[in-house]
Amino acid sequence: MLKLYIGNKNYSSWSMRPWVLMRQSGIDFEEVMLRFDSFAPDSSFKQSVLALSPTGKVPLLVDGDLVIWDSLAISEYLAERHRDKQLWPLPAAQRARARSLVAEMHSGFNALRRLCPMNIEARLPEVGARLWAENADLRADVQRLEALWEPLLASSGGPMLFGQFGIADAFFAPVCMRLNSYGLPVSPAAQAYVQSISRLPATQAWVQAALAEQDFLPFEEPYRQQR
Amino acid sequence: MLKLYIGNKNYSSWSMRPWVLMRQSGIDFEEVMLRFDSFAPDSSFKQSVLALSPTGKVPLLVDGDLVIWDSLAISEYLAERHRDKQLWPLPAAQRARARSLVAEMHSGFNALRRLCPMNIEARLPEVGARLWAENADLRADVQRLEALWEPLLASSGGPMLFGQFGIADAFFAPVCMRLNSYGLPVSPAAQAYVQSISRLPATQAWVQAALAEQDFLPFEEPYRQQR
Repeated sequence: MLKLYIGNKNYSSWSMRPWVLMRQSGIDFEEVMLRFDSFAPDSSFKQSVLALSPTGKVPLLVDGDLVIWDSLAISEYLAERHRDKQLWPLPAAQRARARSLVAEMHSGFNALRRLCPMNIEARLPEVGARLWAENADLRADVQRLEALWEPLLASSGGPMLFGQFGIADAFFAPVCMRLNSYGLPVSPAAQAYVQSISRLPATQAWVQAALAEQDFLPFEEPYRQQR
Repeated sequence: MLKLYIGNKNYSSWSMRPWVLMRQSGIDFEEVMLRFDSFAPDSSFKQSVLALSPTGKVPLLVDGDLVIWDSLAISEYLAERHRDKQLWPLPAAQRARARSLVAEMHSGFNALRRLCPMNIEARLPEVGARLWAENADLRADVQRLEALWEPLLASSGGPMLFGQFGIADAFFAPVCMRLNSYGLPVSPAAQAYVQSISRLPATQAWVQAALAEQDFLPFEEPYRQQR
């Protein structure tokens, strides 16, 4: 049985990707949640992760003796292990586009990630409005999302980027959570996609679990003093 | 014929990855160099790239109508298109490890990338020594490289990470250039790997072309006033 190590569901955007991917695709796995007590070297979190992987980060996928770190490497492993699930689009050109999107998400969108950390239970539209007004790089990141999503949704017919759910959608799920929490303005087509992602059964299961955590972590909270 | 769009060879670390991958693997391609005049929206570089891809970044691989952006998506496309070249290791577990390394390089090593931008012709050991003394995160990045490379080289027998050259090595080629330019101290095993990468015919061809550019770009030069 595959084991997926994740962090707090309210905060861990990188953990959300493979979890939603596996749950929504019907890939069985055992979940192990390592609470973010802190990221100091002597924290319980770091000690637990370092026993498995020298990166000291989640997510981790463990399959027998094999430890795979990083959400993208995990996704590629799952795509090969479960070819019947078609986690990447079947046509080679679409697959190359999907991988380009995912790679861009993997290394980019730094303003959106830095300024709007994932915080599923929080509703911060006033913060979002201020950040939006003050940060051109944040606006550029959201415009880039629209430019990526809109033509794909138009040509696939939606509701997912390439028609049926896959890795690209799982990679953008945490982004959709950020857009919701901070109330960032997006085009109607992009908003429809955010709603489609938010309504996926796997997303809803993740969000419900995040809300149930009720675990306020000050070092993950630049904008709140308490829950 | 595949077309690869790249930036200045002296500076463009992301361009170096797919170029070295294709050249060293014997994959034919046409190279199109788009000089970094600046990264302003009205620069010749941005205008040329934006005509091909809304990311406005290199590298780009063009195969007929298909435009693939991002070095990792390009590498996956090539691995599928040229299965005979075995750009990823054949055993599934080793392939998963290679992808974990590559994904970590793709999104991480931020201190090394920020503090030691690739600058192939420069020799900056004094700058490197100062950066090394002042930045714990830079030292941690280099220690992480050693921790990744050493066990793989020990188990594969070298000279490449998984025995024969592949995507993982291409992804670390720009890092090896940085280690050389800034004279950062690494373990003997890691230094042997840096030398093996530096001696690859494809690396040497890239370096020779970088040296021939003689194109000093002040916005890429935090540490030099001139060549």
